[in-house]
Amino acid sequence: PCIKVAILTVSDRCHAKKAEDKSGSKLRQLISENIFFPGQVVHQDCVPDEVNAIKEKLLAWADSKEVDLILTTGGTGFSPRDVTPEATREILDREAPGLNIAMVTSSLEITPLAMLSRPSCGIRGGTLIVNLPGSSKAATECLRFVAGALPHAVDLLQGRMDTVEVTHR
Amino acid sequence: PCIKVAILTVSDRCHAKKAEDKSGSKLRQLISENIFFPGQVVHQDCVPDEVNAIKEKLLAWADSKEVDLILTTGGTGFSPRDVTPEATREILDREAPGLNIAMVTSSLEITPLAMLSRPSCGIRGGTLIVNLPGSSKAATECLRFVAGALPHAVDLLQGRMDTVEVTHR
Amino acid sequence: PCIKVAILTVSDRCHAKKAEDKSGSKLRQLISENIFFPGQVVHQDCVPDEVNAIKEKLLAWADSKEVDLILTTGGTGFSPRDVTPEATREILDREAPGLNIAMVTSSLEITPLAMLSRPSCGIRGGTLIVNLPGSSKAATECLRFVAGALPHAVDLLQGRMDTVEVTHR
Ligand code: NA
Repeated sequence: PCIKVAILTVSDRCHAKKAEDKSGSKLRQLISENIFFPGQVVHQDCVPDEVNAIKEKLLAWADSKEVDLILTTGGTGFSPRDVTPEATREILDREAPGLNIAMVTSSLEITPLAMLSRPSCGIRGGTLIVNLPGSSKAATECLRFVAGALPHAVDLLQGRMDTVEVTHR
Repeated sequence: PCIKVAILTVSDRCHAKKAEDKSGSKLRQLISENIFFPGQVVHQDCVPDEVNAIKEKLLAWADSKEVDLILTTGGTGFSPRDVTPEATREILDREAPGLNIAMVTSSLEITPLAMLSRPSCGIRGGTLIVNLPGSSKAATECLRFVAGALPHAVDLLQGRMDTVEVTHR
Repeated sequence: PCIKVAILTVSDRCHAKKAEDKSGSKLRQLISENIFFPGQVVHQDCVPDEVNAIKEKLLAWADSKEVDLILTTGGTGFSPRDVTPEATREILDREAPGLNIAMVTSSLEITPLAMLSRPSCGIRGGTLIVNLPGSSKAATECLRFVAGALPHAVDLLQGRMDTVEVTHR
């Protein structure tokens, strides 16, 4: 089954049209062309680095029941305006620390600076939310690190399969 | 010294007698036969996947002062009813992220689907609570990953030894 | 640019002068001699293992705007009095789980008992706070594990560089 994906770029500069949204475009391509799993982009937008703007968009998408997976890109680092994980955590029902740990440890094999990433993945209702970094390259890498588990994650959280059955042969 | 262990299976199906509690039975055997450390099972029960039912049991056992270690099995995944980490976190005094990280990274060497586990280990009073997965196989593996540190953990949290002394040669 | 560092030893015994503050002294030496990065110690103190005492010191230093990096040592383990992570988390604006994951996974390569560490690193205003273990040896190791990223972290959180630019070539 095809995963319905919404892509949210979090970036003051992209929102103000002062920079091109390269990572959002890259993620759209990776999903549309089924590079990691069968998917389709059902929403795509860009918000500034503001907790309320991020939360509003995540809430609208997750609560529409029309989105299986939200990928955010940007706002997960140490810059003063980086607040995507804080905004995400506020609207999560359940956190998914395993995804954070997998992304960080895999990224650390590429660069020690991955220790400055602050992803906060988790679940709201039937929607999985994954925080990806802001650069096109790092967002692609991090999506690749977790992509293999995402179809199972969506099946599980929408009750189409049992956790024990799927994850613990 | 023998670790006093309580085992809590969290599973709607086991609680309704629609499935056998294999992982609870397996954990009882591993503890009773001192496979990983000298231990004895002082309590064992099964609750449905309900936050309140889980919390009640954890509170009763931890606050009885008769339990060194609570092992939960089940409810840590992505299914809609999986709420063991949420229930656990609500009653913890102090979180133990090192145990979560160790379990997840060790499990990732067995299967990438380990990134869908959401353990939330921690401390309440003098009791350590460890969230294990729901399958017998995965619960055994995860217990094995952390077992070597558990006797020290219990000694430390009950004040029988000093952190610096124990953990930092 | 030279990183302005404050060092906080959290230890009942050191505060009561019943033990020598070896890890605080060691950290002062490592920073003053620029072992890991150009640095200078602008504050150094010792508080008992009390949430309020720890919070007060962290708040005073972080909000003085004169400290780039606070290194705490001690109070991150399983002993009943170990509450440094809890105190730290209460005053953080933003958590930095990537630093926690990097410290724990690197430490696990030295000793499995590293799974009993409970670091809670993060950001308050323009100050990065890093929780190090209590022993001189473990504190030095953990500082070494994250030291390479700390100058970038400080540049980023003080707005001197862009996250995408720094971390995601
Ligand atoms: Na036994």
